[in-house]
Amino acid sequence: MDRKIPRSRDDDYTDQAAADRRRFVAEATGVELEHVGQYSFRPAVLPGNIEHFTGVAQVPIGIAGPLLVNGEHASGEFFVPLATTEGTLVASYNRGMKLLRAAGGVTTTIVDDAMQRAPAFMFANARQARDFGRWVSEHFDAIKTQAETTTRCGKLRDIEQYAASRFRYLRFNYTTGDAAGQNMVGKATKAACDWIRATYPGPIEHYFLEANFATDKKSSRINMLRTRGKRVVAEATIPADLIRDIMNTDVATLFRARLVSHLGGFLSGVNNNGAHSANAITAMFIATGQDVANVAESSAALVHAEVTPQGDYYYTITLPSLIVATHGGGTALPTQRECLRMLGCDGAGKVGKFAEIVAATVLCGELSLGSAITAEEWVSSHEQMGRNR
Amino acid sequence: MDRKIPRSRDDDYTDQAAADRRRFVAEATGVELEHVGQYSFRPAVLPGNIEHFTGVAQVPIGIAGPLLVNGEHASGEFFVPLATTEGTLVASYNRGMKLLRAAGGVTTTIVDDAMQRAPAFMFANARQARDFGRWVSEHFDAIKTQAETTTRCGKLRDIEQYAASRFRYLRFNYTTGDAAGQNMVGKATKAACDWIRATYPGPIEHYFLEANFATDKKSSRINMLRTRGKRVVAEATIPADLIRDIMNTDVATLFRARLVSHLGGFLSGVNNNGAHSANAITAMFIATGQDVANVAESSAALVHAEVTPQGDYYYTITLPSLIVATHGGGTALPTQRECLRMLGCDGAGKVGKFAEIVAATVLCGELSLGSAITAEEWVSSHEQMGRNR
Amino acid sequence: MDRKIPRSRDDDYTDQAAADRRRFVAEATGVELEHVGQYSFRPAVLPGNIEHFTGVAQVPIGIAGPLLVNGEHASGEFFVPLATTEGTLVASYNRGMKLLRAAGGVTTTIVDDAMQRAPAFMFANARQARDFGRWVSEHFDAIKTQAETTTRCGKLRDIEQYAASRFRYLRFNYTTGDAAGQNMVGKATKAACDWIRATYPGPIEHYFLEANFATDKKSSRINMLRTRGKRVVAEATIPADLIRDIMNTDVATLFRARLVSHLGGFLSGVNNNGAHSANAITAMFIATGQDVANVAESSAALVHAEVTPQGDYYYTITLPSLIVATHGGGTALPTQRECLRMLGCDGAGKVGKFAEIVAATVLCGELSLGSAITAEEWVSSHEQMGRNR
Amino acid sequence: MDRKIPRSRDDDYTDQAAADRRRFVAEATGVELEHVGQYSFRPAVLPGNIEHFTGVAQVPIGIAGPLLVNGEHASGEFFVPLATTEGTLVASYNRGMKLLRAAGGVTTTIVDDAMQRAPAFMFANARQARDFGRWVSEHFDAIKTQAETTTRCGKLRDIEQYAASRFRYLRFNYTTGDAAGQNMVGKATKAACDWIRATYPGPIEHYFLEANFATDKKSSRINMLRTRGKRVVAEATIPADLIRDIMNTDVATLFRARLVSHLGGFLSGVNNNGAHSANAITAMFIATGQDVANVAESSAALVHAEVTPQGDYYYTITLPSLIVATHGGGTALPTQRECLRMLGCDGAGKVGKFAEIVAATVLCGELSLGSAITAEEWVSSHEQMGRNR
Repeated sequence: MDRKIPRSRDDDYTDQAAADRRRFVAEATGVELEHVGQYSFRPAVLPGNIEHFTGVAQVPIGIAGPLLVNGEHASGEFFVPLATTEGTLVASYNRGMKLLRAAGGVTTTIVDDAMQRAPAFMFANARQARDFGRWVSEHFDAIKTQAETTTRCGKLRDIEQYAASRFRYLRFNYTTGDAAGQNMVGKATKAACDWIRATYPGPIEHYFLEANFATDKKSSRINMLRTRGKRVVAEATIPADLIRDIMNTDVATLFRARLVSHLGGFLSGVNNNGAHSANAITAMFIATGQDVANVAESSAALVHAEVTPQGDYYYTITLPSLIVATHGGGTALPTQRECLRMLGCDGAGKVGKFAEIVAATVLCGELSLGSAITAEEWVSSHEQMGRNR
Repeated sequence: MDRKIPRSRDDDYTDQAAADRRRFVAEATGVELEHVGQYSFRPAVLPGNIEHFTGVAQVPIGIAGPLLVNGEHASGEFFVPLATTEGTLVASYNRGMKLLRAAGGVTTTIVDDAMQRAPAFMFANARQARDFGRWVSEHFDAIKTQAETTTRCGKLRDIEQYAASRFRYLRFNYTTGDAAGQNMVGKATKAACDWIRATYPGPIEHYFLEANFATDKKSSRINMLRTRGKRVVAEATIPADLIRDIMNTDVATLFRARLVSHLGGFLSGVNNNGAHSANAITAMFIATGQDVANVAESSAALVHAEVTPQGDYYYTITLPSLIVATHGGGTALPTQRECLRMLGCDGAGKVGKFAEIVAATVLCGELSLGSAITAEEWVSSHEQMGRNR
Repeated sequence: MDRKIPRSRDDDYTDQAAADRRRFVAEATGVELEHVGQYSFRPAVLPGNIEHFTGVAQVPIGIAGPLLVNGEHASGEFFVPLATTEGTLVASYNRGMKLLRAAGGVTTTIVDDAMQRAPAFMFANARQARDFGRWVSEHFDAIKTQAETTTRCGKLRDIEQYAASRFRYLRFNYTTGDAAGQNMVGKATKAACDWIRATYPGPIEHYFLEANFATDKKSSRINMLRTRGKRVVAEATIPADLIRDIMNTDVATLFRARLVSHLGGFLSGVNNNGAHSANAITAMFIATGQDVANVAESSAALVHAEVTPQGDYYYTITLPSLIVATHGGGTALPTQRECLRMLGCDGAGKVGKFAEIVAATVLCGELSLGSAITAEEWVSSHEQMGRNR
Repeated sequence: MDRKIPRSRDDDYTDQAAADRRRFVAEATGVELEHVGQYSFRPAVLPGNIEHFTGVAQVPIGIAGPLLVNGEHASGEFFVPLATTEGTLVASYNRGMKLLRAAGGVTTTIVDDAMQRAPAFMFANARQARDFGRWVSEHFDAIKTQAETTTRCGKLRDIEQYAASRFRYLRFNYTTGDAAGQNMVGKATKAACDWIRATYPGPIEHYFLEANFATDKKSSRINMLRTRGKRVVAEATIPADLIRDIMNTDVATLFRARLVSHLGGFLSGVNNNGAHSANAITAMFIATGQDVANVAESSAALVHAEVTPQGDYYYTITLPSLIVATHGGGTALPTQRECLRMLGCDGAGKVGKFAEIVAATVLCGELSLGSAITAEEWVSSHEQMGRNR
């Protein structure tokens, strides 16, 4: 019963400490972590990224491209690193990129940007909660000042309020620079809330810093509606002949399938009426050191498509809660940083560029999978490329 | 404009082919993929897992435990590998495991199991669609036979039907053994659908193999209600004194926060009224070679908690669409296989065990984060452990 | 403090008892209920429909038609009674009926039929709940027998099961003949549950006859997916020239507006991506003695539209949870019965006919309002017809 | 085929015109509308409320009370008119009112107020849509001026913006005085949009005045989150002994049932985790001349309950989108006006009072039905009171 995972008091971020833990695992479970123990960096880079560091998961990276992006932050051709173990995925995105490049590229636009923490304040009754809400509105500037004392990058944009029962849910919306910002806004909001608690002239029964209204790492209507992270739109018009020649299908069939999927998704209650945004997002998140758990909310998507009067296919996907960073989290780790760099997304002021590349990649995959389904090539391509052993 | 990613016609899964692509990236982008190029296995293991293999993402693994599980498939203590770059995560789960072990462990139960593909059949009108639906019900045995010709492991359990407009959405539910089974059920369902198309005596306008009713890699109401992958419940009763001593909070406050979160989540329209299931699921998925994009649907969760008459805290989380495998996909890759092995989840018949360990880990994290929020230690712990740089 | 509403012990359903209560209201509030007191029937018809009968609300009825229906139960032309106080409503439906009649009528199909009660059974843990679920499946015939002892019309079709935490939610699906059946299935399900409680060999902690899984008088995903009451599809193809001549708009604009509404509704999280099904449903429900509170769930709708290759407009609406009756509830009251009779929906075996007429009426209103919006006549028509004083 | 409903060119709102239509119905269908033809007012009061006036539906009214309300607008005891044909309904609300009166009454608070129209503006691409959004924010004052030129009562509070694809959905939020205001805000928003279309310096492809973002007569997440009509909270603390003595159940069982319903409703995807708000709302809407079709959105509800440290039951329901009026629509019709008057809700400035009475009534019904379910009296009471015939 005394099987405590070894930890070094002096410095737990060393090869030795990691080796000690692998040895511990070997003793406890009989399994030698040979491959896990093979990493190419010094553990000293890891504080702030992991505890009990023991080794690494080696996730295969394939590259797809060139991806042609016509963004405001990303412009030109990119080769996209995709870390995945799912056969066909890289090939499918690569095919979509070929199509979209032939079509003139993907236009990307960041239409909103907000990271939040959402405390709930409790009162004796709904009337006190409502009056508190008014006070918060009137004291926004002071609250903003308090929140921003804790951070250089974080700026409090506004505070949305949601009322239910004797509670007031406040949604603090920040911009957070190149960081995803969850920790930054947590700290800032706590400072603001502590000030509110100390300053508000009326009685506050209690507050909790979170209560399911920022929905970190969870998909929600509120985030689809009001944005979490970046809200990015990717769009393109693909000439009918390219769809025929490259995708072996046609615009009418694609659009017909889309309408059936619109209805299917509306009825099934899906958080994404598109095809598989999660595939690109996850593979890029792992490769570039994003917080991969944010796939939960980042994969939400809104697809709209049209047949143009010329018979071409206009396709657009909106990612309402894409959480990305080019600074902080895992972005500075060695393999992750290299992947960011190959996209030209390292250094200051690059988070918008990265968001646009992600969205453009997602759109390429939508067309590729959608075409495979309508061309009835989906299963056969997986047979060919996705059979692992 | 001729920047084509190099690919070897003979054998693209070699060190040389990978090196060629890294060189290509260096030429195209100016970035040397030094760390990405350092992996510990032969690329020959990769067909079926990736195309355009170029190197690896090294994702740090920390271990947490011991986790005490009282499952039907998993029983005893486990050390759990978590691949993440988010500071505090491993420490937080580790703390939760300590609490739950002191409380006697986490009870886990798999209550349902189904993997699906959901084709949409189109007809001239709703009446034809309805009549088709009846025919499908009457010919289930023949359809099952057709579907199962394509697979050894996959068994067609039943076909749910959903009606809207002139379409019939069929949800083919399979059990898939140790595999997650998405490709398996795709192939089986295509075979079944082709047979239906050839056999059905009435006119079928068209069918699409997917139309947003299996919602692969997307969170949906249908999957929360009707299960995708495993439906697993993890539950435990934690004595009040342990919550006070280990978590620095108390049952009444935790429960109060839970009720506020119930209401918050119901109003915000979240797909998970718990705290952060995605964190454990993602970290374990990366470590063990799961299809990480399935975090999109696997992170859905249903929390229910109660204060017992004795004043202890009963807490339970249901994962309605947890997609896991111990065979296929990335599970056989070197680091991933080691991680599965340290959980005793390699070999045949282990997928239930793995599902239970995931669910138990998730529950530990719920208590840990929930406690940190109510004890107002959440921000400070992130300050201490989550500051990278 | 002793202001008790008068009630007659002998017979509370008399003109005198109603007059006594009107006098009581006059004394208590100073308001004479002159008009409320004017009704044309004997209160003796009211037991089972109301308590504390005091008078009536007189809701104006307008008629619209002829409505041309091509159903399986309803066939031919109908004049539809609409009870409403909203100006423009009758005119708008009338206009839609004119369009659809010119287009050859509305095709209607009932694709499913189920009324439910959904008890929740509680157990010590999830494992017991799951095992109970298996027992229920195995004992379906016996449960069905028990349920059906209480009713002549109600037939237990099947029992769906939903699992979460240590609970098992059972959804008993019945057919209920010409009645809506909520009371019938409540009684039957209680009998079944009492038998289950007495018979099940394992321990059952408790059961509640309802726990938000039949969602009576509430709109829900479960009811949209799995049907409550009748699931009815109304569809029609409207020639382009009729849309131009009668509706002052064109197919391309209507379809464009529809796509924008599809996307809007998906994002806003609406339970009805159409226009205003609630208007027809409510007005017909009041006129014909339906349980009007069921508008909450009956108004859910799924719209799908297409431009045909010929350039005409195919439009369809699916009502997934339309709750209607031609027997029981308010259907036998004097004005209500007359309205049912003018639709030929009195007498046995008419509920399908009524459901189809409702759905056809709804479809007419969709085209009418949709056209008014695209033709920019919406506001002006309300100015003309909807100004009350 | 020439069966046109008769209409009088001179004045269609006369007894004669109504009689002509009843005669027409008799000829067309063979059904004499005897009771429908018996109404107590002059048809001349009806313009703006109905077209093709033919008679009335007589909906029985029962009264319940006294209801004790502690509101900001409603204070004291009320007798509530409920128009329904569902047996047990009046009795059940009456019982709840008895309980709550004994408990000291229902506290009500209006926490938000907004009526909206939500046009969608379309652009060539997402970038233009975003830029348009900024322009709208910058020109709010001018837009407000334009909107308010069309109305005396309507005040444009703010414009929310929602972005998806190349569209911008604008949600114009107004206060509308004593009117529900749907027509008022339609007219005002059209004026504003026409001005925007004429004034905006960039190209606007098109706009539609509605596109599923105000969700009139439909339940939606956006309305639950952001309010439509009044957002009203009703709350009360009920002593344990009253629940035992009046309701034949106990606080622990009620709360246990509530938690099971919370979970059930979260999983079933209901728009109301309470019991049956639609019953009170519908019955009061019919009685008082509200737009009854608004039950679709008005019945959404959020319940939160707690056991107090003293063991009493705190219960609260939030109606996020309650659409009510004391002016306009059907509120001036004879029986409807009498019902408003008996609540003291006729005349100027009474809409808040009415909203509070509705919410208080709803809460009484929640406790009554909830208790009946836990006391297992639900079915038996319907047997006793709800059997018509």
